[in-house]
Amino acid sequence: MNVSEAIQSRRSTRYLDPTHKLTDDELRKLLSASMLAPSSFNMQNRHVVAVVDQEVKDKLKAAAWNQDHVGTASAVLVFAGRLKAHRATDRFLRDAAKEAREMFEAMIPDFYEGKLELQREEACRTVGLAAMGVMLTARELGYDSCPMIGFDPVQVSEILGLDEDHPPLMMMPIGKATAEPHPRLGLLNMEEVVSLDHFENRAFTGEIEN
Amino acid sequence: MNVSEAIQSRRSTRYLDPTHKLTDDELRKLLSASMLAPSSFNMQNRHVVAVVDQEVKDKLKAAAWNQDHVGTASAVLVFAGRLKAHRATDRFLRDAAKEAREMFEAMIPDFYEGKLELQREEACRTVGLAAMGVMLTARELGYDSCPMIGFDPVQVSEILGLDEDHPPLMMMPIGKATAEPHPRLGLLNMEEVVSLDHFENRAFTGEIEN
Repeated sequence: MNVSEAIQSRRSTRYLDPTHKLTDDELRKLLSASMLAPSSFNMQNRHVVAVVDQEVKDKLKAAAWNQDHVGTASAVLVFAGRLKAHRATDRFLRDAAKEAREMFEAMIPDFYEGKLELQREEACRTVGLAAMGVMLTARELGYDSCPMIGFDPVQVSEILGLDEDHPPLMMMPIGKATAEPHPRLGLLNMEEVVSLDHFENRAFTGEIEN
Repeated sequence: MNVSEAIQSRRSTRYLDPTHKLTDDELRKLLSASMLAPSSFNMQNRHVVAVVDQEVKDKLKAAAWNQDHVGTASAVLVFAGRLKAHRATDRFLRDAAKEAREMFEAMIPDFYEGKLELQREEACRTVGLAAMGVMLTARELGYDSCPMIGFDPVQVSEILGLDEDHPPLMMMPIGKATAEPHPRLGLLNMEEVVSLDHFENRAFTGEIEN
């Protein structure tokens, strides 16, 4: 499936076949997509827990206001941040040339250390980038998904054993759709959300291709 | 280009042909990709300013520590959040059925109102999701990109006329690459960033396909 088709056909889907299972190869492809997404300074400041065990899915469902698709998904990916990733330069700069490594080692820790809000925002950006790659890959594999923040992060952390450094920032049921998605609630037009050269210049008009 | 190829070939690229221009159709395709990305409660809590005017690109470059590719890009997309999107339910729920509209109207403002950190984090997630769709679309169109947070947000807001409700959360030069990207600095292995069913269970081992 090409990129445009995947983007245009991706919709958040809540009706999933509870009997369907992903193959290991499919799961690895989905996880690889998350890993190849970019991150600030290459910190890769995220950790994904892929939940396929039904008992764990059911616990996550209870922690997500009993939303059905958390229980019926073939896999539920929980995207956690890694807030202190900036401290691990030896990890994410390990293949860097000496000059680049020294430059980044001097720059990165100072940019993030002690700034918890920035660390969390950075993790949210990183998770968003990774999650979109996963959802488009799911489309290519014939699956649908639903990114969610409607869950209790404390309960989810307890269920999955996540620590303070790895807060859950997004949950994503993935599976085989059993129904068409709902009609869109209200896709905004281009002039409402896009400007050209200056915020006040809403130069693009009309609905988008969809 | 299919999704897997786009994900595997996407790299942050800093060497762009300053003479290359995007067609209007290409720019619209890139912007459409940002608009079709999901967002929490469908709030579409983002605004993209597409900068193609060289004078504005040069100002942005100065506000981004003089990084070359901001000046040489065919277009620089600035992804702003829209922090108070939750107040505009009449806008993003306008096509919703009465029952869904009433449910969400009762739920959404209360979820976000008065919670500035949550509003910013939500905007960062939304911007990340949108940005990845744009970068993969750029690959499909034969272009490269580079997501950045290395800029002064106050200066960028002044240059583009962004208000407090629309903070710039990511900048993205897009253009025609003139050189191969640098080797990766250190792509982490699957067992370092992925777990199965529980955070402590690093079940997937080895490097990813790349």
